[in-house]
Amino acid sequence: MNEVASKVVVGLGDRSYDILIGPNLIEQAGKQIASRLPGIRTAIVTDENVAGAHLARLIDSLKAAGIASTAIALPAGEKTKSFDALQEVVDGVLAARLERGDAVIALGGGVIGDLSGFAAGIVRRGMNFVQVPTSLLAQVDSSVGGKTGINSARGKNLIGVFHQPKLVLADTSTLDTLSPREFRAGYAEVAKYGLIDRPDFFEWLEKNWQEVFSGGEARTEAIAQSCRAKAEIVARDEFENGDRALLNLGHTFGHALEAATRYDSTRLVHGEGVAIGMALAHRFSVRMNLASADDAERVETHLKAVGLPWRMGDIPGNLPDAEALLGYIQQDKKVARGTLTFILTRGIGKSFIAKDVPASEVLGFLKDNHPG
Amino acid sequence: MNEVASKVVVGLGDRSYDILIGPNLIEQAGKQIASRLPGIRTAIVTDENVAGAHLARLIDSLKAAGIASTAIALPAGEKTKSFDALQEVVDGVLAARLERGDAVIALGGGVIGDLSGFAAGIVRRGMNFVQVPTSLLAQVDSSVGGKTGINSARGKNLIGVFHQPKLVLADTSTLDTLSPREFRAGYAEVAKYGLIDRPDFFEWLEKNWQEVFSGGEARTEAIAQSCRAKAEIVARDEFENGDRALLNLGHTFGHALEAATRYDSTRLVHGEGVAIGMALAHRFSVRMNLASADDAERVETHLKAVGLPWRMGDIPGNLPDAEALLGYIQQDKKVARGTLTFILTRGIGKSFIAKDVPASEVLGFLKDNHPG
Repeated sequence: MNEVASKVVVGLGDRSYDILIGPNLIEQAGKQIASRLPGIRTAIVTDENVAGAHLARLIDSLKAAGIASTAIALPAGEKTKSFDALQEVVDGVLAARLERGDAVIALGGGVIGDLSGFAAGIVRRGMNFVQVPTSLLAQVDSSVGGKTGINSARGKNLIGVFHQPKLVLADTSTLDTLSPREFRAGYAEVAKYGLIDRPDFFEWLEKNWQEVFSGGEARTEAIAQSCRAKAEIVARDEFENGDRALLNLGHTFGHALEAATRYDSTRLVHGEGVAIGMALAHRFSVRMNLASADDAERVETHLKAVGLPWRMGDIPGNLPDAEALLGYIQQDKKVARGTLTFILTRGIGKSFIAKDVPASEVLGFLKDNHPG
Repeated sequence: MNEVASKVVVGLGDRSYDILIGPNLIEQAGKQIASRLPGIRTAIVTDENVAGAHLARLIDSLKAAGIASTAIALPAGEKTKSFDALQEVVDGVLAARLERGDAVIALGGGVIGDLSGFAAGIVRRGMNFVQVPTSLLAQVDSSVGGKTGINSARGKNLIGVFHQPKLVLADTSTLDTLSPREFRAGYAEVAKYGLIDRPDFFEWLEKNWQEVFSGGEARTEAIAQSCRAKAEIVARDEFENGDRALLNLGHTFGHALEAATRYDSTRLVHGEGVAIGMALAHRFSVRMNLASADDAERVETHLKAVGLPWRMGDIPGNLPDAEALLGYIQQDKKVARGTLTFILTRGIGKSFIAKDVPASEVLGFLKDNHPG
């Protein structure tokens, strides 16, 4: 059996938990879960694609540790973050007669993690929950920190709860099956942590990104650093009343672009929207005389180097005009009480929460940077 | 404007909140909410019956304090605690474009409070929530303590979250419109607090129950005492990992009887099930040599005096046999990890959590006390 390569603790008092990061961790899942939650039964929630690649190994690992499991497999894709799918998972967990001390295990990417974490948060007013994220995005972002949820016709992630897992098992071997595009999209969130408050990490990524992409120790290290960065922010502000909003760097512009392209993944996936959003947040910070043009260029250069889109013109097809994009920004749930809140920056690793950003400035910026 | 007759604080650190109890509080709702949550907008969730009696006054009171509101009225009755109704409320709140700092207001009995508290707990991962309970049961029990939820085909209250309100306004004037049967059913939960750990309160109720039923100061006092009793237990154990289970006194037998009568409210409503359940819990405690027969008789005598059912034979129609009743008990969600947990007692006001109660003893007891 492989040793665990890396461990990050999310420090939340009596709700603290471990994130284990390394190759072939699914084979250790049973042992790791049994040592933390002895005597439980489980329901594994996954999607039909991930099930084919990893489900049998997870079930075997649980079985070897004496943990019974039921599997609930849903269609892959963002449409699964719905009320209907939530009801299906909740009913499946109840049908398996699981109790509050039993666990829901999410095996999959962000969609599966968000949906099944929500289900775990509401069945019997909160069951145990374990994340086994299988995409880079889920390993460095969505599986950590307890945000769960589904989409509404009125916007993404508008319905959900904060429900922390008891354990996150980031098996880096699962990343070998990702498409290059999907890996890159997840990498945008890795770079984000450097840009928020870890300039040394960003510099390390500038030098070592090729090793991160090709796998091995550098990849595990980048994921562990990302989890550590997120864990620190979450420990400071679990319920997003303050600093946690920093994690939205690139997300306000990014979400608007995702909405403007109607969440058409052939044009733009979430991580790509975040990449463009981060570049725009830096450029906008230059316009607001907060950051230097050199810093904005450094961000753009790195995103370009790894093959990520970095400007609106990189999105295939036509975009709505600047006014319409501003409208999407104003609809975003991170708009507090009618004023515009952005994560802006004073340079690499110097992000901050800027409240009351004038909509007129944002509009002017969008016009100047619009590809149309 | 009337003065607030009584105030109880639920002490939960930075999530502490006030319960105000007294006549004509709906007329003060706008003022009380505005002083605690300045500048918010609201969605009022209610049922069609309650809307007719109280909604206009609540809207007027909010308006006078400068608080905008949208009303969402649902069909009255237990069927409204469903996934469909939850989705309707969530969608209505989002359609009103309410933000995380805005509030959902529950105006109604336990069904409305449980449902809309759940919706408030999941829209934008948790919005502000205010309870305006209009039934005695809701004023002394369900509106206090943050338990929210809906029913599943597999059982009642199996899906929900803990989400504390910011304020509870128990307007005792609304109780004047309750039917005598509904008032009595709520009274069972009042008596429960005496039986859990307040023998003096139970004694006071034995002497003053007629004044409680007829309204005025004794009624306000009984409600305030009940809220205080519940608040103390909730403050000790918000998430029901220990002492909070004491609040289930009478509920294990009661839930089984509700399930056995298929939640047919013409035969048995929740508070009546609790009344019979409390009497049975005391009788069962006598059988287990824990309490004296005198104490069990005192409970039965008081329930009889106020007009509540106290034995299984008081339920109209036939009951399933003892084995089937035990099956319902074992299905109840308060059964932890396959063993039977009951709230038993060593006498009036001396309840305790009994784990590992032998199913064979329960079965024998049910057989001996079965009316069929």
